[in-house]
Amino acid sequence: MRAVVFENYEQFPSLTDVPKPEPGPGEVLLRVAGAGACHSDVSVYRHFKEGQPGAQKPPFVLGHENSGWVEALGEGVSGRVEVGAAYLVYGPIGCGHCRKCARGQDTYCENAATMPYLATGLGRDGGMAEYMTAPAHHLVPLGDADPVAAAPLSDAGLTPYHAIKQALPHLAGGGRNALVIGLGGLGQIGVQILRALTGATVIATDVKPEALARARENGAVTVAGGARQVEEIREITGGRGVDAAFDFVGVTPTIAAAAASMAQGGRLTVVGIGGGTHEFSFFTTPYESYVTNTYWGTVEDLWEVVDLYRAGQISPDVERFGMEDALEAYRRLEAGEVSGRAVVVPGQK
Amino acid sequence: MRAVVFENYEQFPSLTDVPKPEPGPGEVLLRVAGAGACHSDVSVYRHFKEGQPGAQKPPFVLGHENSGWVEALGEGVSGRVEVGAAYLVYGPIGCGHCRKCARGQDTYCENAATMPYLATGLGRDGGMAEYMTAPAHHLVPLGDADPVAAAPLSDAGLTPYHAIKQALPHLAGGGRNALVIGLGGLGQIGVQILRALTGATVIATDVKPEALARARENGAVTVAGGARQVEEIREITGGRGVDAAFDFVGVTPTIAAAAASMAQGGRLTVVGIGGGTHEFSFFTTPYESYVTNTYWGTVEDLWEVVDLYRAGQISPDVERFGMEDALEAYRRLEAGEVSGRAVVVPGQK
Amino acid sequence: MRAVVFENYEQFPSLTDVPKPEPGPGEVLLRVAGAGACHSDVSVYRHFKEGQPGAQKPPFVLGHENSGWVEALGEGVSGRVEVGAAYLVYGPIGCGHCRKCARGQDTYCENAATMPYLATGLGRDGGMAEYMTAPAHHLVPLGDADPVAAAPLSDAGLTPYHAIKQALPHLAGGGRNALVIGLGGLGQIGVQILRALTGATVIATDVKPEALARARENGAVTVAGGARQVEEIREITGGRGVDAAFDFVGVTPTIAAAAASMAQGGRLTVVGIGGGTHEFSFFTTPYESYVTNTYWGTVEDLWEVVDLYRAGQISPDVERFGMEDALEAYRRLEAGEVSGRAVVVPGQK
Amino acid sequence: MRAVVFENYEQFPSLTDVPKPEPGPGEVLLRVAGAGACHSDVSVYRHFKEGQPGAQKPPFVLGHENSGWVEALGEGVSGRVEVGAAYLVYGPIGCGHCRKCARGQDTYCENAATMPYLATGLGRDGGMAEYMTAPAHHLVPLGDADPVAAAPLSDAGLTPYHAIKQALPHLAGGGRNALVIGLGGLGQIGVQILRALTGATVIATDVKPEALARARENGAVTVAGGARQVEEIREITGGRGVDAAFDFVGVTPTIAAAAASMAQGGRLTVVGIGGGTHEFSFFTTPYESYVTNTYWGTVEDLWEVVDLYRAGQISPDVERFGMEDALEAYRRLEAGEVSGRAVVVPGQK
Repeated sequence: MRAVVFENYEQFPSLTDVPKPEPGPGEVLLRVAGAGACHSDVSVYRHFKEGQPGAQKPPFVLGHENSGWVEALGEGVSGRVEVGAAYLVYGPIGCGHCRKCARGQDTYCENAATMPYLATGLGRDGGMAEYMTAPAHHLVPLGDADPVAAAPLSDAGLTPYHAIKQALPHLAGGGRNALVIGLGGLGQIGVQILRALTGATVIATDVKPEALARARENGAVTVAGGARQVEEIREITGGRGVDAAFDFVGVTPTIAAAAASMAQGGRLTVVGIGGGTHEFSFFTTPYESYVTNTYWGTVEDLWEVVDLYRAGQISPDVERFGMEDALEAYRRLEAGEVSGRAVVVPGQK
Repeated sequence: MRAVVFENYEQFPSLTDVPKPEPGPGEVLLRVAGAGACHSDVSVYRHFKEGQPGAQKPPFVLGHENSGWVEALGEGVSGRVEVGAAYLVYGPIGCGHCRKCARGQDTYCENAATMPYLATGLGRDGGMAEYMTAPAHHLVPLGDADPVAAAPLSDAGLTPYHAIKQALPHLAGGGRNALVIGLGGLGQIGVQILRALTGATVIATDVKPEALARARENGAVTVAGGARQVEEIREITGGRGVDAAFDFVGVTPTIAAAAASMAQGGRLTVVGIGGGTHEFSFFTTPYESYVTNTYWGTVEDLWEVVDLYRAGQISPDVERFGMEDALEAYRRLEAGEVSGRAVVVPGQK
Repeated sequence: MRAVVFENYEQFPSLTDVPKPEPGPGEVLLRVAGAGACHSDVSVYRHFKEGQPGAQKPPFVLGHENSGWVEALGEGVSGRVEVGAAYLVYGPIGCGHCRKCARGQDTYCENAATMPYLATGLGRDGGMAEYMTAPAHHLVPLGDADPVAAAPLSDAGLTPYHAIKQALPHLAGGGRNALVIGLGGLGQIGVQILRALTGATVIATDVKPEALARARENGAVTVAGGARQVEEIREITGGRGVDAAFDFVGVTPTIAAAAASMAQGGRLTVVGIGGGTHEFSFFTTPYESYVTNTYWGTVEDLWEVVDLYRAGQISPDVERFGMEDALEAYRRLEAGEVSGRAVVVPGQK
Repeated sequence: MRAVVFENYEQFPSLTDVPKPEPGPGEVLLRVAGAGACHSDVSVYRHFKEGQPGAQKPPFVLGHENSGWVEALGEGVSGRVEVGAAYLVYGPIGCGHCRKCARGQDTYCENAATMPYLATGLGRDGGMAEYMTAPAHHLVPLGDADPVAAAPLSDAGLTPYHAIKQALPHLAGGGRNALVIGLGGLGQIGVQILRALTGATVIATDVKPEALARARENGAVTVAGGARQVEEIREITGGRGVDAAFDFVGVTPTIAAAAASMAQGGRLTVVGIGGGTHEFSFFTTPYESYVTNTYWGTVEDLWEVVDLYRAGQISPDVERFGMEDALEAYRRLEAGEVSGRAVVVPGQK
């Protein structure tokens, strides 16, 4: 079958033929509906060197944002997973036996350091192919919702959802304010989720005017970057600052802008892996506010992301590419030419 | 000054002249902007007998949903309460010294049994008059928002808000369902609050078609009363039931309908004082779900209700009556002829 | 191998020979260390009739509170489950694919109605045998702690733990009070858990003096049953009532006693399946308090129960029986002659 | 009457005669039982210069940790505050009218910047005198518990209590670990509160052996400072790190040690005002953990501190000084010669 394969460190992936996989015990075989192309794939094949922390050992099929139709059940999988039905695939794969995996939080697997891979498409064959395998307990049923547009939700939806869910107690009630910095794929879905789940005024900021326009369509109040950014954010909040902020960029200046916008007791979650830093000091930090980070989400979270998707409360912008155009998708992703999320659709001619 | 006075048990109130009050230490004098007429006033003057639990000793000026402009400050009140500015008045008045009053929850005052009154307008002179007094720390600033439409919020807004706020953890996340039974003044504001603060599907039910229509305008999915009511509610929730229900009627059949609609872990809050009952049984109660009750709210809650009001997230339907028509307001309230909330506006000719 | 088999409805189990089981995909084979005998086993073989809701279809090996040493790994189980090491077994087995199973809450499996069994030892072969099989992701490592005394924790520890964990927010802080009704195996561990995890005054009540004495050793303040029971409980709480109550009996009079002892905002969890009922009424229920139920716990909870056990914070009283005395264990359990928890130890001569 | 007066910036206080105060509206007059001497008093009279942020304008009577017997009620104070009874005094005094003051959180008063003082004894006359005044709603009844030993609880008890209460969700359940850095007055009470309210292993660290010994008596596992400190802390936690840390020193090295000891999802609260800093970085911060700060507590918190004190769950070490030795108390405090908390007892000869 055709697949996008990461062949070697610091090398652009290949579109090539690989054998159709077989599902192992407890796994299913899926015919892929859609596989999202993500900036972290670019990191995988461009930046990481062999042996570096975080490097994923090639070769493997890319694609960690996947949906598909179940084609066959591996040994020990019961009929409750329905052959022919569409599912979204939870990507992270932990050891399956630790206390974190026991609650469906493979992202924080206590044995992660000794696992041979992180996720489907990250060290283990993913969904940029006609077929893929996945653990049966990592599937979330999509019902009759479009599986192609759903694919990116398993990362671009799940990551902001998890970050926001941890922050919901900070946004519970009247008069709350939220801030979203960075209005790419994850940030726009973040705005949608905040608008759906809270009564907070959602303030969104970015340097691109078209991203701001899209955020306004999604219900945000927007603030442009620049010298008056923090001041404007504070004004919108009546001077109090924001109760929860989500920085989808994560470089030092964006973290600084978010930190300067916090209310007492506020939570700033750095989602973007820009590698920025921020200095805590007793006297400059609003009381009981803080900066933290996050990584992907849980299987239970993904069920709730699908609930939002099926209810029409979130709708990712996707651009579809056929299998033969998959490398073009990555090329355009690297060039910054993709609006929304690029999804490879193996079944598309 | 003119005032609506509850003169004696089981007797319709009088519109009469009483002396303009003086603010005591820690109190303010307010020129009344609006005073809501509430069904519980009717209970006060129609149903309670002397010495009965809950009876409020006459005579006193009615009106426990009040707003006004500060006219004068009593001793010990600082200039931070602004003379001339508009405020909403928190009604309940506890002892001021117990642990519940210490956090602004006068409703659950530990010394309530020995207090001479419950609230402004309930045992102590209220706002159905040209002027009233209130404790300075029970005022919430209204800014430039309309103080007349705000008046009912101090009960018809605060009561559903407090009930919903306790239930927010049950509604935090995707795929949640809420149920509102009874779509009068409090129920409609309840629908508005749930729509503003949660992503839940809000299911609303009542026997009156016009109440259902209004709830749909407020964003609810409506279900008519009748034999299939519970079945329809369950269908809307995909079979799972509702995560939080609010019964603004509180008679045995409405509690039964709500209880039969609950999801595992759901919270059913009986808000309406219909006096209904419901039987808990281990085997018929969905696991970890429960039925509870509630009473009014806290000062902090009222600040957040005002936040919602000033942001346009809740808007009570009000019908205005001049001071000389105040008794007519009560007459129509008793006759079921008031749509929305009747507000007496002393300054209206 | 030798095993205690439930052969037919309404029939005392047999001690007999059955084939040694083989682990399926995703399962492990365990050499049993200990298997607790539980009152619910008695219900299984004494009370349920064929086809009755809750009946478990015979024949199968009893024992749903199990510990053991891993002997062999089924297909697809990774080396992270260590052959030779001791584990406690989480009993409930759901479909493995729904949103509840995805977070390790098999007890509330959304497909429970179509599952052929409830748990190991409840519809599927359990641990009253020399060997048993269990899903690999349902094992919790015991390290070097005694696996025999651990066995009952998978029900008699997990059930009170889950109930208490849901109630911890009610007990968080100074001046809180908890109530435990029914001081058998689960109740005593309940007292230990409450003492370990909260600063609450733990009030315990039972009709048996020796049970009260044991509860006092565990750190509880005890109250005897009888006419002044509720009054004494209230006195201990300074009149305020208890913030969380756990009724391990669950008959109407015990629920009534607990309900009459509640504080505002208190949570009463009925754990015992005595089938009692309780009437909610708006006017008699302390504000925001409620009655709910519970069932067993989650895999994550069981990890935390083992944490408490390994730290010496809980220690079940157990009475050990060799394999050939297993039926005697059930006989004495039925006769009320077991103090603590009866554990069958297949390796004991 | 005799009083310890802060007469001028950067000047040691005087023991002098001042007029006996009169309670204003809403206030009470207290005969002082005990007044704690606190390091922050030393900052007030040694370090702050006129006009500097945080400077409190002299002259005023020192003492912000006070207890006493009510001697007289000001206007508007009801008989529910009992003349002759002993009370602990909540120190912070906000505007009384904002949303934070409305819930008894004067510490975070929204109008703090325009208030003439911070607290009794901090800008306004405090308790280092025979008599003092305080707002009636800031009193917490002590019943028959010793009021002298209670005095320090209003800061040295309330501050760690508030910090710990915010962190309780992180410590709720089995297998949790807490860390206390800095075992002076607040740190030791912090250890006591953690032991009373949680089941966590409480790890305590300091450079003084006698402080470590005292912490062990209070139930902590102790770790000495030095090169292996973090490693030892991690070992005690089984490698996972601590779920909540409290740094009562707050200099850069102590914050660094705490931060290096955190578990995923952990909360590090810097309580001590050592002015240290700490750098957040996405890649070095354990997922979802964070560093935050805190300031004193709420009136409701103080009620719960008193609950713990009256139940014997916390017991501050105090050293008593008569009124004429009050300056000696400050001298020894500055010299590091006070073990426990110095309390001035005006009624002691």
